[in-house]
Amino acid sequence: MNIRIYNVRILTMEAEKEIFDGEVWVKGDTIAYAGPQVPDTKETWDKEIDGQRNLLMPGFKDAHTHSAMTFLRSHADDMKLDEWLNTRVFPAEAKLTGEDIYWLNKLAIMEYLTSGITSVFNMYLDKPMEDKVAKETGFRTVICESINDFGGTLQQVEEDYKRYSHDPDKLVSYQLGFHAEYTTSRELMEGLAALSEKYKIPVYTHCSETKKEVEDCRSRTGMTPIAYMDSLGLFRHGGGLFHGVHLDEADFDIVKTRGLYVITNPASNLKLASGIAPIKRYLEMGIPVAIGTDGPASNNCLDMFREMFLTTGLQKAICDDPEAVPAMEVLKMAVVNGAHAMGLPECDVIAEGKKADMILIDLQQPNMQPIQNIEKNLVYSGSKQNVKMTVVGGKILYQDGKYYLDSSKEEIFAKANESAQRILG
Amino acid sequence: MNIRIYNVRILTMEAEKEIFDGEVWVKGDTIAYAGPQVPDTKETWDKEIDGQRNLLMPGFKDAHTHSAMTFLRSHADDMKLDEWLNTRVFPAEAKLTGEDIYWLNKLAIMEYLTSGITSVFNMYLDKPMEDKVAKETGFRTVICESINDFGGTLQQVEEDYKRYSHDPDKLVSYQLGFHAEYTTSRELMEGLAALSEKYKIPVYTHCSETKKEVEDCRSRTGMTPIAYMDSLGLFRHGGGLFHGVHLDEADFDIVKTRGLYVITNPASNLKLASGIAPIKRYLEMGIPVAIGTDGPASNNCLDMFREMFLTTGLQKAICDDPEAVPAMEVLKMAVVNGAHAMGLPECDVIAEGKKADMILIDLQQPNMQPIQNIEKNLVYSGSKQNVKMTVVGGKILYQDGKYYLDSSKEEIFAKANESAQRILG
Repeated sequence: MNIRIYNVRILTMEAEKEIFDGEVWVKGDTIAYAGPQVPDTKETWDKEIDGQRNLLMPGFKDAHTHSAMTFLRSHADDMKLDEWLNTRVFPAEAKLTGEDIYWLNKLAIMEYLTSGITSVFNMYLDKPMEDKVAKETGFRTVICESINDFGGTLQQVEEDYKRYSHDPDKLVSYQLGFHAEYTTSRELMEGLAALSEKYKIPVYTHCSETKKEVEDCRSRTGMTPIAYMDSLGLFRHGGGLFHGVHLDEADFDIVKTRGLYVITNPASNLKLASGIAPIKRYLEMGIPVAIGTDGPASNNCLDMFREMFLTTGLQKAICDDPEAVPAMEVLKMAVVNGAHAMGLPECDVIAEGKKADMILIDLQQPNMQPIQNIEKNLVYSGSKQNVKMTVVGGKILYQDGKYYLDSSKEEIFAKANESAQRILG
Repeated sequence: MNIRIYNVRILTMEAEKEIFDGEVWVKGDTIAYAGPQVPDTKETWDKEIDGQRNLLMPGFKDAHTHSAMTFLRSHADDMKLDEWLNTRVFPAEAKLTGEDIYWLNKLAIMEYLTSGITSVFNMYLDKPMEDKVAKETGFRTVICESINDFGGTLQQVEEDYKRYSHDPDKLVSYQLGFHAEYTTSRELMEGLAALSEKYKIPVYTHCSETKKEVEDCRSRTGMTPIAYMDSLGLFRHGGGLFHGVHLDEADFDIVKTRGLYVITNPASNLKLASGIAPIKRYLEMGIPVAIGTDGPASNNCLDMFREMFLTTGLQKAICDDPEAVPAMEVLKMAVVNGAHAMGLPECDVIAEGKKADMILIDLQQPNMQPIQNIEKNLVYSGSKQNVKMTVVGGKILYQDGKYYLDSSKEEIFAKANESAQRILG
């Protein structure tokens, strides 16, 4: 389908490029033109959309989530991470069927779309189901391997890598990873390091999320999780750390030297009382930061606007520095760094040849007025209410409050409620 | 106008009362019935609304704001409070006309409505204009006196008290107050204390927002702002403190003994790097806390959902306690305590005889699904997107994205942009 979106302000997110008035052409899943208005296009379009001088920008990248955990939303709140995982999350997850995951994942995708999120880095239990849902809905998904001592084999990991890494349109892709140091044996991590070396691919994992995690690892290994995992050769080809809240000085150097991404999840870290990640420090060291919502069981919502405000607001307060982490840096994290962290460089900006993963932001809402500095408005006062349209791979999946998915909203809600009730009683 | 809202789940916010299915009748500006469905009403209605099993609850009370500061949104970010006030806010405010304030205030009201806020405790520069806007729009406004060394006289304060305190339907009301200890002379504060004594009325002020404010006051007076103001007799009839971030042990006791409300503004406190208020401690001491957005210049948005999440999330993280400030406590702050702090006990809950200040929350959005614990959903995952209808004094002012005000959205936006451009260039 060929779409022309005209009469829009465009924030391409390319470095140093200001917002300009113009139009964007989409052919298939790709951006064919992004520039000033073309007086006479001589093209034919399946659809022409008048953007009404609203803002067109690349979609947000949710660089760490567990989509199908929607069933645990508002079920197990107000607990520490380890108690929460062991007494609530793991027992409930043991009852999940593939069909549950199918519908719970679709529910999450609806919510991503309302928040302008066009792709997710999703770590969860059922890869074939993730793949199926992504393809049915048209929602771009990077599967993050989650092997640990409770599930998965290295042979399966290698097969999954081969199976999910070669989708030509990259609607589904795959990155090597594992759940966390505290759930994964040394042998398994060494096996993953060998796979990383064999295929020259990065590795992603939950890391240094809580003080307890770091202390426990020190007791067991004499090292921080980052130092220990690095000593096993896991980061020789880069990768990323989900959370990265509690680091010592040597940890920062390892992250920097190995070129790791840190994916911050500020709302989840607050809600589980895990702490506040040192984002200002990461920026000062030139460590690239991306943003994730984490799963809906711990957050409890999938809202990139909330995460963006927290990413800067918390730093300002804990660093006693109102200049910490400026708005444009936050946008870069939520859009460009997210794409790069997830292995989606073709989705980072609006430019010819890039994937058409874009959102239209409604500026005709009171929280965006007056229009003085749109980037700051987005980070400091934006909300889901401002997401007018979400386009993934050239397809409009959400527009003006309506979803264009293969299942209806009513069916997804009904099935998700059924799953939650059956599992949680 | 008589309105029947049926087929709704009702969260009355009365103590210990669970959510139940039923209907609510509005006659004039008052709730005439709130209970189970009535099989045959035998009443005639100007309007009957099918709530589609969404949630009807009392509106949020924004217990501290400066509405017309919308013109400064995204203009002066990333600065410390004192620099921000002195170099950006005060010079810009000096150029404001009454007409600017009129339109900028209307812009803020639009935003309150999108966030389910049905009344505000507004401290700003032009009381007649606040009164006019409140009456024209039908938006409930408690005017907070803001006298300080740069404007206002005690005689005017007494006149304003008499003028704005006796509106029979309480669409507009008034509370005694002043800007802050650091902008107000001892003589003026003593005069206010005398007025408070004369009329037996509470006093409200910005207080202990930043460390610098507290330290400066100590240098000048040998006391904290709270102790100093209390020594001047300002709190003999109660009142409230806006912010209340930096308190010493004796301050907590004064707040408790005097029965003061603390109105917390977590987003503004983060953004200006002022700190994080000790909400958990306030709750443990039985000090009532209400929630405000603060003005759009410092926040930068007027979003009670963001404030609610921050009110609990920040405490969990800084107290290292995921159980800190449970969701239902937060809702109570945002609704009931807000009403009481502002002197609006008739707006606190949904019950016969109370003012019809209510909101309809859309549960048919993915962030509210599955429906397991609606109160937690509201606090942990709610967003402006969930506000389906906002009713103030029995009038529907916002429904399904449309505003029912005396001015059009287009006119308000145009005028607000004109004001911002003229003043800020």
